[in-house]
Amino acid sequence: MRKGLLFIVSGPAGSGKGTVVNELINSHPELKLSISATTRQPRPGEAHGVHYYFISRDEFEKRIENGEMLEWATYSGNYYGTPQKEVLEAMENGIDVILEIEVDGAMQIKKKIKNSVAVMLTPPSKEVLENRLRGRGTETEDVIKWRLGRAKEEIMLMPEYDYSVINEDGGIKKCAEEIYAIIKAEHNKTIYTSQIIEKFI
Amino acid sequence: MRKGLLFIVSGPAGSGKGTVVNELINSHPELKLSISATTRQPRPGEAHGVHYYFISRDEFEKRIENGEMLEWATYSGNYYGTPQKEVLEAMENGIDVILEIEVDGAMQIKKKIKNSVAVMLTPPSKEVLENRLRGRGTETEDVIKWRLGRAKEEIMLMPEYDYSVINEDGGIKKCAEEIYAIIKAEHNKTIYTSQIIEKFI
Repeated sequence: MRKGLLFIVSGPAGSGKGTVVNELINSHPELKLSISATTRQPRPGEAHGVHYYFISRDEFEKRIENGEMLEWATYSGNYYGTPQKEVLEAMENGIDVILEIEVDGAMQIKKKIKNSVAVMLTPPSKEVLENRLRGRGTETEDVIKWRLGRAKEEIMLMPEYDYSVINEDGGIKKCAEEIYAIIKAEHNKTIYTSQIIEKFI
Repeated sequence: MRKGLLFIVSGPAGSGKGTVVNELINSHPELKLSISATTRQPRPGEAHGVHYYFISRDEFEKRIENGEMLEWATYSGNYYGTPQKEVLEAMENGIDVILEIEVDGAMQIKKKIKNSVAVMLTPPSKEVLENRLRGRGTETEDVIKWRLGRAKEEIMLMPEYDYSVINEDGGIKKCAEEIYAIIKAEHNKTIYTSQIIEKFI
């Protein structure tokens, strides 16, 4: 049976990765979106097992110790991570898994899971990114400057990724379809299809 | 400007590569199908510059000597080959080129053109292939046996290819779309997109 593959979608804040991944999953419901675990409090409207698995700090640390996290990181004093078991089981059952994570986590998984496929979503330019961050209207000038600097660092890591997709303004659907083409193409790589040779011998 | 890429579509007789490539070009006319040169006589309905460039043996040999053929081979005493200039010019102008050629030629080009992408089209099994070859009703038992043996040898070369696509009976459109996904995905490889990093520095 065809095994599932793991697709990491990552990119700096302002790349639109959340929106693009939502579009991808909605238009291709056969894909499984991996749900992260976190120790932060749920925000209004967020549900356990839908947006995140909300777990305690003790529980999270126990899982790290037991090697049950595929990757994890801390942001603003909270843990965020990817539960390993769910991801591997889905792949074993032939389901492609989408992981929308930060750049650090993406690099951890690239090292850990052979054949995982890393896609970086980027804004088309620094100027567009700056407009998007300012457009949110929720962040101070200092935070915007910090995010721009951080975005630059993250985008410099592009050569570590397998693919990148440029998210032009209004390009959500186009990006989702480009990622879907990557998913299809990866399954046709001869490293996965060569077993058909046996049917000719 | 985005450069065009070279996609080789190859596979044994009975894989349906001609039909699949026609479907691909018809549904995506922005792609350019490379036209081969040959020294064989045109068959009824075949036009110079459409199905082949029909050229003389002297002319063909002169082009080989001048290094103007990307690949060439002889079948049944006739030369067949791919004129190089047209292919390289189209790529330079940002056009993706599709080359439908025999397995030997595919291997020649993989060595010659860095970053060319080789896709092998295969029937799903030896039995299906045999049915297709018999179904043509035009070939003797000996020729069918020879073709089956040759197909097996060609399919064993699959690991030399980048991708393979399985052509199930009735799967022409599906195959064409799988090849198109490969074309899209290849353009998103970070080896081609990394220049966007400059827009963030």
